Amino acid sequence: MMSCCHTPAQDPAQAVLDNIATRTSIRHYTDERLTDAEIETLLRAGMAAPTAINLQPWHFVVVTDSAVAARMTTGRVNRMYAEAPCLIVVCGETTTMARRHDTPADAEPVERDNLNWPIDCSAACENILLAAHAMGLGGVWTACYPYPERYEVVKEVLGIPEKVMPLAVLPIGHPAEAPAPKDKWKPEKVHTGRW
Amino acid sequence: MMSCCHTPAQDPAQAVLDNIATRTSIRHYTDERLTDAEIETLLRAGMAAPTAINLQPWHFVVVTDSAVAARMTTGRVNRMYAEAPCLIVVCGETTTMARRHDTPADAEPVERDNLNWPIDCSAACENILLAAHAMGLGGVWTACYPYPERYEVVKEVLGIPEKVMPLAVLPIGHPAEAPAPKDKWKPEKVHTGRW
Repeated sequence: MMSCCHTPAQDPAQAVLDNIATRTSIRHYTDERLTDAEIETLLRAGMAAPTAINLQPWHFVVVTDSAVAARMTTGRVNRMYAEAPCLIVVCGETTTMARRHDTPADAEPVERDNLNWPIDCSAACENILLAAHAMGLGGVWTACYPYPERYEVVKEVLGIPEKVMPLAVLPIGHPAEAPAPKDKWKPEKVHTGRW
Repeated sequence: MMSCCHTPAQDPAQAVLDNIATRTSIRHYTDERLTDAEIETLLRAGMAAPTAINLQPWHFVVVTDSAVAARMTTGRVNRMYAEAPCLIVVCGETTTMARRHDTPADAEPVERDNLNWPIDCSAACENILLAAHAMGLGGVWTACYPYPERYEVVKEVLGIPEKVMPLAVLPIGHPAEAPAPKDKWKPEKVHTGRW
């Protein structure tokens, strides 16, 4: 066989593992806007996450107006909102009409608390941040829930309904910084067989 | 330029996006064991997730003994535990000695509830499932928290300390089924500008 004339094929599995390992929080962005296609790619990644009994309790508010973003800022931890060309606010429905997981499939649905919404929406957030990193974008997970001083502001500014809760605001843009990813591997966190 | 003699180089970004889009729950596995290297790769992916103020509140219990796995099974939703060659139990420390996020950097740390542990551990779960899929393995997210009838059994069987909570059990193995990934893209879940 002849040697290849262009960049060697990268193993797709290694590309995924490297992307997970090298993702890190990006808090400063250039002025470049995200395209609509880029935003849709990020949202598709979010909606590909698994959810408990496939309820997909999420909603995504996309903010690209820096004046609105500035009104969502509540302090030092999220002062980057107005600098980011795009905020994706990942929200969850806190109630559901689905039947309980422990009832028969034909049981009548009733409105009840959906205890899994923060878990499901967290998986969506991680998918979005991983997709952003793969696309050469950068983002950071800033918490709303469970901090009333943050989520009440976000709900008010964005008109989020009573039974929907913003879990996190993800500012995303083209990176204007290149911090080294943290090495968080700690073998002492692994318990083999039992604790 | 000459055409390449082997498989064209795949775009690493597309490999990541495709991996997110095609991951789906795998609930049946062959008898093939996971290697120690594969398990470490999965755990490294988990520990690469972001955590609130970088607390890394997670622990991971690795169960490869099907007799132990069978004792963790509590019903229909997790009946696959004993079939899986490996369970990764993702746990979180429910308290922390870190200072509160809204106090000065030199404030005295005190033990307090860590409200973010389910969120942080959910990001770790998603990383592990994405890594497994990339590696040709398959897994499924089965909830422990917030269901006492599940997490109390898992805590008892694995000897998990009082202030640590198992969020999820991830059975992982070589797939013995090939279900089509769900298409969960719903444009009506996107709210542009505000709700």
